[in-house]
Amino acid sequence: VDERPPVFGRLALIGVGLIGSSIARAARERGVVGSIAASARTEATRKRILELDLADEVFATNAEAVKDADLVILCVPVGACGAVAKEIGAELKPGAVVSDVGSVKNTILQDMAPHLPKGVHFIPAHPVAGTEHSGPDAGFAELFDNRWCILTPPPDADPAAVARLTEFWSMLGANVETMDAEHHDMVLAITSHVPHLIAYNIVGTAAHLGEVTQSEVTKFSAGGFRDFTRIAASDPTMWRDVFLHNKEAVLEMLGRFSEDLSVLTRAIRFGDGNTLFDLFTRTRAIRRSIIEIGQETAEPDFGRRPRTKESPAELPRPYSSD
Amino acid sequence: VDERPPVFGRLALIGVGLIGSSIARAARERGVVGSIAASARTEATRKRILELDLADEVFATNAEAVKDADLVILCVPVGACGAVAKEIGAELKPGAVVSDVGSVKNTILQDMAPHLPKGVHFIPAHPVAGTEHSGPDAGFAELFDNRWCILTPPPDADPAAVARLTEFWSMLGANVETMDAEHHDMVLAITSHVPHLIAYNIVGTAAHLGEVTQSEVTKFSAGGFRDFTRIAASDPTMWRDVFLHNKEAVLEMLGRFSEDLSVLTRAIRFGDGNTLFDLFTRTRAIRRSIIEIGQETAEPDFGRRPRTKESPAELPRPYSSD
Repeated sequence: VDERPPVFGRLALIGVGLIGSSIARAARERGVVGSIAASARTEATRKRILELDLADEVFATNAEAVKDADLVILCVPVGACGAVAKEIGAELKPGAVVSDVGSVKNTILQDMAPHLPKGVHFIPAHPVAGTEHSGPDAGFAELFDNRWCILTPPPDADPAAVARLTEFWSMLGANVETMDAEHHDMVLAITSHVPHLIAYNIVGTAAHLGEVTQSEVTKFSAGGFRDFTRIAASDPTMWRDVFLHNKEAVLEMLGRFSEDLSVLTRAIRFGDGNTLFDLFTRTRAIRRSIIEIGQETAEPDFGRRPRTKESPAELPRPYSSD
Repeated sequence: VDERPPVFGRLALIGVGLIGSSIARAARERGVVGSIAASARTEATRKRILELDLADEVFATNAEAVKDADLVILCVPVGACGAVAKEIGAELKPGAVVSDVGSVKNTILQDMAPHLPKGVHFIPAHPVAGTEHSGPDAGFAELFDNRWCILTPPPDADPAAVARLTEFWSMLGANVETMDAEHHDMVLAITSHVPHLIAYNIVGTAAHLGEVTQSEVTKFSAGGFRDFTRIAASDPTMWRDVFLHNKEAVLEMLGRFSEDLSVLTRAIRFGDGNTLFDLFTRTRAIRRSIIEIGQETAEPDFGRRPRTKESPAELPRPYSSD
């Protein structure tokens, strides 16, 4: 048991999906906050939050949930953050820290800041962690362990508030880094947003072929395709918003990707094996670096456990509820 | 212990890397063959094959290894198969079955068939299984369990020989399917070859950005990028040969991929959220199908075991030996 006192007295979570529920679980287990309030739009989700003991109190409106909170974290899709800020602005306690978990940071600042009163500390944050599953049942306390959480405080942010939010995320297991919002959006465009887009794209391409049946695509997916389907199973609303809100950086990185792909296409067309071999050798070194810094498992095939015909996997909720 | 008699008396493995050594392990464990001969170019590899007990006898030349073999399997890169066929053609026992494990099937037929004498049965095969690791130490007996092995027998193939090779792969754990070589190459282009190419490509793009450092790419790779690095760490020689030998189908599927990506790029540019949301919803269903048929784990994040800063992963050979 961690002996440090809670970093914040009362935490309000706006949205209790994969990320929100993981914050709740980790914050409770590790004594990071004194109490948790949460909001959810539907009665079913509010009931589930209490069943899972993710909050002490749940509310139907965001305005109620943030009253008396010392830390408010928006865990909703990026496109919803502006509207939530407008709902909660008048109810925030003076001195409260307001943050989020969005994968885009520049538009968050623009969308939320105008609705927040003076005297609260707005410090956007992005924990770079997740799985392809969604909803309050999908979260787990270890999600942020040894992952990075990026803070993008505005230039005039209160250093003490930044320090407290840093302490909060550190106690949740994360390594905390600070950068400006524009740089964050460029870094995430290449490390997360474009990878998701091309994964969604190849899965879509494979689904609409005349020459190859969908049954063949799934049967023979162990040849590489299935690796892409994991991130192409991520939450559709969240990812739609990411692309709409990080348009410039995503288009820039997509342009680079497409240029590079043209070079490879040309190498294949003209039988230039050296260009292919040189690239394929260099890319192996990048995976080695990721394993070395502990951001990836070294086990072959991600350590996937093979499934047999006799014991197929049970479908988790994001798939079974479609 | 399986009580069935061996399907083939003597197996000759030309090449004992990830696939060859997995065949050897599974065939020995499950009594699928009577004895195993293997060839390797270097003294070090021949020594390692015997240390790992992957063969009863090892030879420096392919011609020696295939003598008296009832089944010969080439487990070398696709581009080397023609030359190997030339080396072994005159030494093959009448009635022997000759096969391979290449990811491209049409050119294999063209490259190998002219060198093989009448009276041997040439039946190309492709087990759709693998990991990002290479070499005789990387193999394991369970690699083919519940994976598909595709046979592409020529139209005039001997049905009895096809049946014996089918039995061989079934005893190794695989589901066996038969199709013609052209169709195989089209199916694999979309399920394996293009996914590998775009994975290699995005890893290459990320490695050469001025705006984002390579250290940032690796640190924040848990946002999605690291999923691509697994298949971009696959054997460079093998994959160079795949692209050079399946040129037409890969270029065709790359064309489809690029067209589809243009549609998504346009949707992002013009803020068309519905197009993005619709695709992102459909792609989730594909992963569900793959899980349902037992070709993928249902565990979030592939069931990856998180690594901590205190206990980083040990680097396996394909990375540490670079």
